[in-house]
Amino acid sequence: MLATILYGPRDVRFEERDTPKIEKPTDAIIRTSATCICGSDLWPYRGINPITQPSPMGHEYCGIVEEVGSAVKSIKPGQFVIGSFATSDNTCPNCRYGYQSSCVQREFMSTAQAPLVRIPLADGTLVATPSLPPQDLLPSLLTLSDVLGTGWFAADAANVKPGKTVAVVGDGAVGLLGVLSAKQMGAERIIAMSRHASRQKLAREFGATDIVAERGQSAVDRIKEMTKGSGADSVLECVGTKESMTQAIGCTRPGGYMSFVGVPHDVELNGQDLFFSHVHLHGGPAPVRRYLPDLINLVWNRQINPGKVFDLILPLDQVAEGYRAMDERRAIKTLLQPDIAKEKKSAA
Amino acid sequence: MLATILYGPRDVRFEERDTPKIEKPTDAIIRTSATCICGSDLWPYRGINPITQPSPMGHEYCGIVEEVGSAVKSIKPGQFVIGSFATSDNTCPNCRYGYQSSCVQREFMSTAQAPLVRIPLADGTLVATPSLPPQDLLPSLLTLSDVLGTGWFAADAANVKPGKTVAVVGDGAVGLLGVLSAKQMGAERIIAMSRHASRQKLAREFGATDIVAERGQSAVDRIKEMTKGSGADSVLECVGTKESMTQAIGCTRPGGYMSFVGVPHDVELNGQDLFFSHVHLHGGPAPVRRYLPDLINLVWNRQINPGKVFDLILPLDQVAEGYRAMDERRAIKTLLQPDIAKEKKSAA
Repeated sequence: MLATILYGPRDVRFEERDTPKIEKPTDAIIRTSATCICGSDLWPYRGINPITQPSPMGHEYCGIVEEVGSAVKSIKPGQFVIGSFATSDNTCPNCRYGYQSSCVQREFMSTAQAPLVRIPLADGTLVATPSLPPQDLLPSLLTLSDVLGTGWFAADAANVKPGKTVAVVGDGAVGLLGVLSAKQMGAERIIAMSRHASRQKLAREFGATDIVAERGQSAVDRIKEMTKGSGADSVLECVGTKESMTQAIGCTRPGGYMSFVGVPHDVELNGQDLFFSHVHLHGGPAPVRRYLPDLINLVWNRQINPGKVFDLILPLDQVAEGYRAMDERRAIKTLLQPDIAKEKKSAA
Repeated sequence: MLATILYGPRDVRFEERDTPKIEKPTDAIIRTSATCICGSDLWPYRGINPITQPSPMGHEYCGIVEEVGSAVKSIKPGQFVIGSFATSDNTCPNCRYGYQSSCVQREFMSTAQAPLVRIPLADGTLVATPSLPPQDLLPSLLTLSDVLGTGWFAADAANVKPGKTVAVVGDGAVGLLGVLSAKQMGAERIIAMSRHASRQKLAREFGATDIVAERGQSAVDRIKEMTKGSGADSVLECVGTKESMTQAIGCTRPGGYMSFVGVPHDVELNGQDLFFSHVHLHGGPAPVRRYLPDLINLVWNRQINPGKVFDLILPLDQVAEGYRAMDERRAIKTLLQPDIAKEKKSAA
């Protein structure tokens, strides 16, 4: 099959790769209906995470089950499924605590920008929709695989509750869906921190009540001004840099909650600063599997439309342009559509 | 009056200092019934926190109100009172959130190893007992000023709940009272990490069900063995070093809670390690004022006996020996008794 491979900084190719097969009895193969590019894919794309060998890419996916291994019980060929970017058996102690992204058998998906994908631990990773979804729900369903699940975790981990004041650091797709999640959880005031008109607009559509364009200490000062000098109850850090973490801690009131959901890059947190900030801190790879059933319901019932974060839709074979558009911030997030007709022909 | 002054590393003197006076209308002067030495006093005593000038010492106190400023409404001369090591107005937004130790008017007490002490913001800082306490309750009441309040916050911030498994890193007075607090909060299993027989014994008296003597990675491995490979639900970090923080994070299960209540010294937390640990982190200077009324009740009704952490009681004028005994780990915690008869005579 033809699929996405990253060769080096800004060198994404769409080329022949072995078609995935069932390797373990707990595997499934799915034919992707849609996949996409994640903000975190830009770290290796930009060479910030070194690339030591040509690497398949992609960890967000939804699609139709083609085949399952002999031990798979709950997932069946023909079903439409969505799975987390992190596989899980959903039975180990960590999974039972609701932290499936720390499953003892976890693997991080990395081959999903392709027409066919092998999913390890299919029973514990994938969740099927009630029936085959209408085409227009595909973008929103795809967001459940990572980006909405991660924004949702950001809001949950920052203890967003009805009536609270929430600030969101980062106006990428995760931050924007953090706004949507905070709105769903009943936040009264949602401050999106953004200086890009198109992202500010989407933030407002998703429920932001205020926009703060300042950054760093000016942003902290602005948030404190807006919150009687104390800071926000809940702050969602959706970037992963030293600057954004520092800004987020500064924006949180004493006793407030700060979440961080972007993999931190070159971040060292000073113990005394954290101590005297009095914030609650929680983050990590989002336990998407925990949220999948409820989030599928919300999308299925058209209560939320997270698919709006995709402002660029390309055929999968134009994946390189998808990366470029996101790298240059021309696109918030790129959805990739495998050409099923062409794919079937090439497989035949 | 004669009081405690630190001149330099291991140079504590008991010598003449100005008798405190009401300076602001919100002040009170109290005659200390008992004061003590804190583990955190050892940082400057050992020269780890530099001493730039002769410094009065002490931030834990209880005693009888001598005099109050003209604006003090709720505290009256003759009452027996206990106050936090951090003063608070108890009315600002941070106080109302329950984080009085981040009060906008906060001052850290630093003159309490003395027979008379000025307490700023008396109304918001001090809490009176129902009547004058019997002598044998003094040690336990004194612990409420910091060490029990801090152990209690450690357990509260680590989300200790009935039925949970708790590990406590640090066998100093705060750690031991963290064990007592976890027991009060209904923890099922309480693992005290200690390699000192006398401290292990007190930990067991306070409610520890298990003792782990290992440190570092061996301690982490041991805790995981004891918890089906996952780690403890709640971990109380009561030391404040890089090693103890790392150990505590390692002992916490994904999705578990870790508190840290000792001022961190030279601690930088790696963002990615924290991210992938999936722990909830919360700490800071304990909001003792929040807990004082309930903790006074527990001591007053003899439901808890935290005063047992004082294994050395000295007259205040022997404060230097009190520091030495704690520095050399001959004592867990030293209680200091002002000689009221002598003091009154000297003031006359």
